[in-house]
Amino acid sequence: MMKKVLVLGAGQLARMMALASKPLNIEVRAYDVGSDKVIDPLVNSLVYGDLEDGLAFADVITAEFEHISHDVLAICEATGKLFPSSQAIKTGGDRRLEKALLDDAGVANAPHKIIHTKEDFDAALDSLSLPLILKSALAGYDGKGQWRLKDKAESEAIWLDIQAFFDGAKGSEQQGVIAEQMIPFDREVSLVGVRNKHGETYAYPLTENHHCNGVLSVSLAVNEKQELQKQAAEAFDSIANTLDYVGVLAIEFFQVGDKLLVNEIAPRVHNSGHWTQQGSDTCQFENHIRAVVDLPLGSTHLVRPAAMINILGPDHVDHQVLNVPSVAMHWYGKSKRPGRKMGHINVCGDTKAQLIERLNKIASILPEDEFPEVAQYIEQLT
Amino acid sequence: MMKKVLVLGAGQLARMMALASKPLNIEVRAYDVGSDKVIDPLVNSLVYGDLEDGLAFADVITAEFEHISHDVLAICEATGKLFPSSQAIKTGGDRRLEKALLDDAGVANAPHKIIHTKEDFDAALDSLSLPLILKSALAGYDGKGQWRLKDKAESEAIWLDIQAFFDGAKGSEQQGVIAEQMIPFDREVSLVGVRNKHGETYAYPLTENHHCNGVLSVSLAVNEKQELQKQAAEAFDSIANTLDYVGVLAIEFFQVGDKLLVNEIAPRVHNSGHWTQQGSDTCQFENHIRAVVDLPLGSTHLVRPAAMINILGPDHVDHQVLNVPSVAMHWYGKSKRPGRKMGHINVCGDTKAQLIERLNKIASILPEDEFPEVAQYIEQLT
Repeated sequence: MMKKVLVLGAGQLARMMALASKPLNIEVRAYDVGSDKVIDPLVNSLVYGDLEDGLAFADVITAEFEHISHDVLAICEATGKLFPSSQAIKTGGDRRLEKALLDDAGVANAPHKIIHTKEDFDAALDSLSLPLILKSALAGYDGKGQWRLKDKAESEAIWLDIQAFFDGAKGSEQQGVIAEQMIPFDREVSLVGVRNKHGETYAYPLTENHHCNGVLSVSLAVNEKQELQKQAAEAFDSIANTLDYVGVLAIEFFQVGDKLLVNEIAPRVHNSGHWTQQGSDTCQFENHIRAVVDLPLGSTHLVRPAAMINILGPDHVDHQVLNVPSVAMHWYGKSKRPGRKMGHINVCGDTKAQLIERLNKIASILPEDEFPEVAQYIEQLT
Repeated sequence: MMKKVLVLGAGQLARMMALASKPLNIEVRAYDVGSDKVIDPLVNSLVYGDLEDGLAFADVITAEFEHISHDVLAICEATGKLFPSSQAIKTGGDRRLEKALLDDAGVANAPHKIIHTKEDFDAALDSLSLPLILKSALAGYDGKGQWRLKDKAESEAIWLDIQAFFDGAKGSEQQGVIAEQMIPFDREVSLVGVRNKHGETYAYPLTENHHCNGVLSVSLAVNEKQELQKQAAEAFDSIANTLDYVGVLAIEFFQVGDKLLVNEIAPRVHNSGHWTQQGSDTCQFENHIRAVVDLPLGSTHLVRPAAMINILGPDHVDHQVLNVPSVAMHWYGKSKRPGRKMGHINVCGDTKAQLIERLNKIASILPEDEFPEVAQYIEQLT
């Protein structure tokens, strides 16, 4: 009776899928693309073989991240067990495919152009209004692959830098750059949703996200204005249906006035949905697994206002945090490295006011140097 | 930083402690008293050695059940790592110690007498009113060890049977029998609470329990009358303080009018507290672990009305159950055996009425032969 799932990627997302799967009698193993080993995501030292062994084990294959080599995706897809499809996973790893998807799905996003040559670059400058943000189409490396162009005078220097970036790009796939008009947005929100093979979809409540140094710091899920929720859920349906998507998918939006523009998508469970472990009827990890093994989807109802604080770097927080009612710690069992996602703290409140009170209490315990901007972000919540 | 806990016993309670501990960065191993092996309760095939290896591994030792040989308890206690104490664990496994504890703690319970000899038996008949229920002091075996005495005329036959039971009793400890006045009670309720080394206690909301053939079938946690909750919490404090208890402890009560009489205690996490996994700020498994490793206790607040249905025997239920919002399945990963506790179903509602509606929906899906009395019990809820 037990279903067996292989997750491509062996990080915290695979681990949390495994934790959510045990009670469903579903066994999860994780393929570590770095070491080419299949491991138990709850007992990392337990090695079950290589990719071939993992494929033989699995009834279903899924992924916890989108930067998986196309060779591996092709091998997995050939088994007929891969959900979501390799096309959907690739779309999350290549901004060119992502922008094409958003246009196909007819969802609002920032004006943009794809750049592979100097001619493309000049054309982008002609057709888009400054300032521009330029991002590598495939994942950058060593923090490279992102430029801001505010003034035409900078264009020559930036093009030379992009050219050098192209020349230095490694790998089997051709690198490119997306030029996007910078949108002055009011805030960043995201929507996590789930779709099954039968085309049914459920969306979690919109989440407000605070980033610090480009990394998610705090997420807050309260019941947002229904008009915004509706827009986001419609974008989710359009995107997920266009991809014939199976599993959990996240969409990051810029909110501009009362409108949402899609910033990017992630074809997987997402950091901004970690609060669902405590704040929703069914958490995103369980719902992803339910979708890929074709069990009925779980309700995405907000049980009560919830928030998440990322732990980026520290491998310990003051135990006093556990004195705050409803706090749930989620450590990932990783070795310490500066800035690394080591875990997260979930907290809920019966009301938004109670949640904010608890968040302030937590912020007063967490040291500012290890949790920059967290206290300030929380203080301004009302 | 990671704390290591050895659980005496390797069943579903150890497994659920392990699941609750992973996110806290606490590693749980389980000692299977039958095989004398220490295993990973999430990966049963993973054997880490024998008891000695387990003791060396552990920062803290605890137990998932009370029927552990006194030799093993003595070895564990000698390490200074055992919580709760061996005395507390033994009290749960011997009705004589249990009754003495209840009397010491000054909590209401049924009039009773301890019987080791014919003289004790006759004295019990003289001082207690019929009908009586007689129960073996230590765990019975093969379903033996329980008698009902309604009429004096039956006493001679029952004494002969008890004598034969004593003669057949095995093991190092002396068997005995407790004679109790049968209490005509209105319903059975239980309270799960937690106490730490510093004497702090938290009690979960009272749970109404429906038993079928002597085994827990359904538990229901709503906010009960505060007067009842107060009585139960006071009994918890008295008992836990008398034992200088550390960890989660459950108390089963008979409700007679507006009064609670203690039926029995369990010095451990308890089946009637499984609903806390979905219905409370902190589940009983996490709170037990927090207590024994001396982390701050978690809030026992009822997030919303919750219920649990035991799965006794079947290794599969209709997946349609997962369509009911908020349903969480908890399978224990055990091989099938008639009547065995294979898993449980948790369900919540924003209101009691919504919870009952969902319970009725679930009951309409579950087959009557595999879930006897469940539908009838749920139907009469209001």
